Amino acid sequence: MSDTIRIALDAMGGDAGASVVISGAALFLERKPGVRFRLYGDESVVAPLLEAYPALKAASQLTHTSVQVQMGDKPSQALRKGRRVSSMWQALDAVRLGEADVAVSSGNTGALMAMAKFCLRTMAQIDRPAIAGLWPTLKGRSVVLDVGASIGADSAHFVDLAIMGAAMASVILNRPRPTVGLLNVGVEEVKGLEEVKAAGRILRALPNQNFSYLDFIEGDDIGKGVADVVVTEGFTGNIALKTAEGTARQIATIMREAMASSLMAKIGYLFARGAFQRIREQMDPRRVNGGVFLGLDGIVIKSHGGADALGFAGAIDIGYQMVEQKLLERIREALTQARELSPPSPPAPGSANVNLPADRKQQ
Amino acid sequence: MSDTIRIALDAMGGDAGASVVISGAALFLERKPGVRFRLYGDESVVAPLLEAYPALKAASQLTHTSVQVQMGDKPSQALRKGRRVSSMWQALDAVRLGEADVAVSSGNTGALMAMAKFCLRTMAQIDRPAIAGLWPTLKGRSVVLDVGASIGADSAHFVDLAIMGAAMASVILNRPRPTVGLLNVGVEEVKGLEEVKAAGRILRALPNQNFSYLDFIEGDDIGKGVADVVVTEGFTGNIALKTAEGTARQIATIMREAMASSLMAKIGYLFARGAFQRIREQMDPRRVNGGVFLGLDGIVIKSHGGADALGFAGAIDIGYQMVEQKLLERIREALTQARELSPPSPPAPGSANVNLPADRKQQ
Repeated sequence: MSDTIRIALDAMGGDAGASVVISGAALFLERKPGVRFRLYGDESVVAPLLEAYPALKAASQLTHTSVQVQMGDKPSQALRKGRRVSSMWQALDAVRLGEADVAVSSGNTGALMAMAKFCLRTMAQIDRPAIAGLWPTLKGRSVVLDVGASIGADSAHFVDLAIMGAAMASVILNRPRPTVGLLNVGVEEVKGLEEVKAAGRILRALPNQNFSYLDFIEGDDIGKGVADVVVTEGFTGNIALKTAEGTARQIATIMREAMASSLMAKIGYLFARGAFQRIREQMDPRRVNGGVFLGLDGIVIKSHGGADALGFAGAIDIGYQMVEQKLLERIREALTQARELSPPSPPAPGSANVNLPADRKQQ
Repeated sequence: MSDTIRIALDAMGGDAGASVVISGAALFLERKPGVRFRLYGDESVVAPLLEAYPALKAASQLTHTSVQVQMGDKPSQALRKGRRVSSMWQALDAVRLGEADVAVSSGNTGALMAMAKFCLRTMAQIDRPAIAGLWPTLKGRSVVLDVGASIGADSAHFVDLAIMGAAMASVILNRPRPTVGLLNVGVEEVKGLEEVKAAGRILRALPNQNFSYLDFIEGDDIGKGVADVVVTEGFTGNIALKTAEGTARQIATIMREAMASSLMAKIGYLFARGAFQRIREQMDPRRVNGGVFLGLDGIVIKSHGGADALGFAGAIDIGYQMVEQKLLERIREALTQARELSPPSPPAPGSANVNLPADRKQQ
């Protein structure tokens, strides 16, 4: 890696396509004038857009691609038509070839993950990559993972998620030793899935990690910011994330309707406009845009398909920080340390062996 | 069942105990003066409270119990010390003996479920009981189940949840044929857990049910009110519910702080007080208090431990409606019909047989 951070952008991804990508990149370049971009997309679309941003044009190298992964493409379709030739693939391939340090795309998540696995491969110590999201909390932000890549998990996968999530949190939240909670249910009858209980036993026994393990937490602890890192598998994580987004939108709708429901309410709204602006800012999804693909041999950031330029710049910023703070090295070191230090798993009543083998790679 | 609806109350459950139970019952009696109560609790505590409500006292029969299940008791502890003798057990036993039509408790959920299974047993066609909750949505309310009783589920259990949830929704939402959605993830790469996919195939093929099947829905569809009934297993359901509660509380905190952050905001708040009241009412958890235990040979309602009198009266009301509209008969009929109509399951690529056996009861 050279000292200059080089960012590969899939210029064709997202609902709005190249215009958001280019204006987002321009915005980010104002913050960090030292970065360089590699842009992949249809030259006839991207080149004219670049004309409006001379600084960005000077800092970028545009490679023409004629194929574009659509938002509705299935991963298999995207791979068939887009492998090697699409803007998405080329951005990932730049990372693989060492020509870029990170790839950012707002293209469709499933296709991006499938291509990233195919192009970059997983880290030597990791079987299944995960997607980590940033979750706004009352204390700031937390890293929540997996939010949808790996469906179902054994105890060892939960431990990998904890280690990778902690490495990401140490970078993005600037915590030397972030706290980690394992998401579980609070109903006393049932103490949760077997795999989650087994993961809890392993995590409790792991000494000197890159994180401080808090044990089980519940769904309502996420928003309180109880843990810097919230570990769950992709099915529950995706549903929890979307349920929270749905709840936030639902309340926003109720508020909007209530504040327009009477003259008094409208007057009140005018007086309190600054406060409402503050609420909107604290709930602004652009503050937390950027899903980080973890467990791959390269850094990939997924920007939300509906993000605007500010949101896309935020996703680039997350990728930038991951590169600058050497996320991959941190993860590799932490995984190696965990594999070395991993004690024989404490006996679980009636459960299968949950020990961490030194290398679970199966390819 | 006599024409008079008879309600058994665990008078000692909940954070506040008997005072909330008694004042909640009094409140409900004002709405439905025809009901009769059986109260179970410490006579020295409950009898003095009843003095303040002559009408309730006249409509109630108090049975002294000396043992009380604590909120922190584990289910096994609760069963050991509270079986036969506790207020919780006695309320359930009144339903078993046909002396009451429904039991309502705000005691600890795990203990209540364990005792209910032990005392009332499951319906002939059901292996595992579930807890159904009411979820406030933009369109009104939806039934969400399971929110924490059964952890993990096979495809047949999902189908049972759909059938039982639809019966409850037809009563409580007054829908002759409610819509049912199966909660799944939206990331394209992965179409969800095998069991969920298999359940989807069965539900799509079931003809003429007591519900209209909408297919998969995602976490953010719950708050929109896309489906009258949202089906998921207890691990994910509990985490989704608590995550949504946490998000609502988080936003309420942000709003409170914002509206107190400046003089202008405070003035605005005064003008818009009515609108804020409306928001509070729409988000009031007391509107949706009352978890319904489904799949048991008797109706049991769990009121939230922290509910006040109004909330507890709401939980009684849910139980009342379930009795009045013959929930158990509806469930039994729908289950029988489904077992009869259940077609051979359509072939699932590479999956095990997911057919519905006529009787999966294993006791």
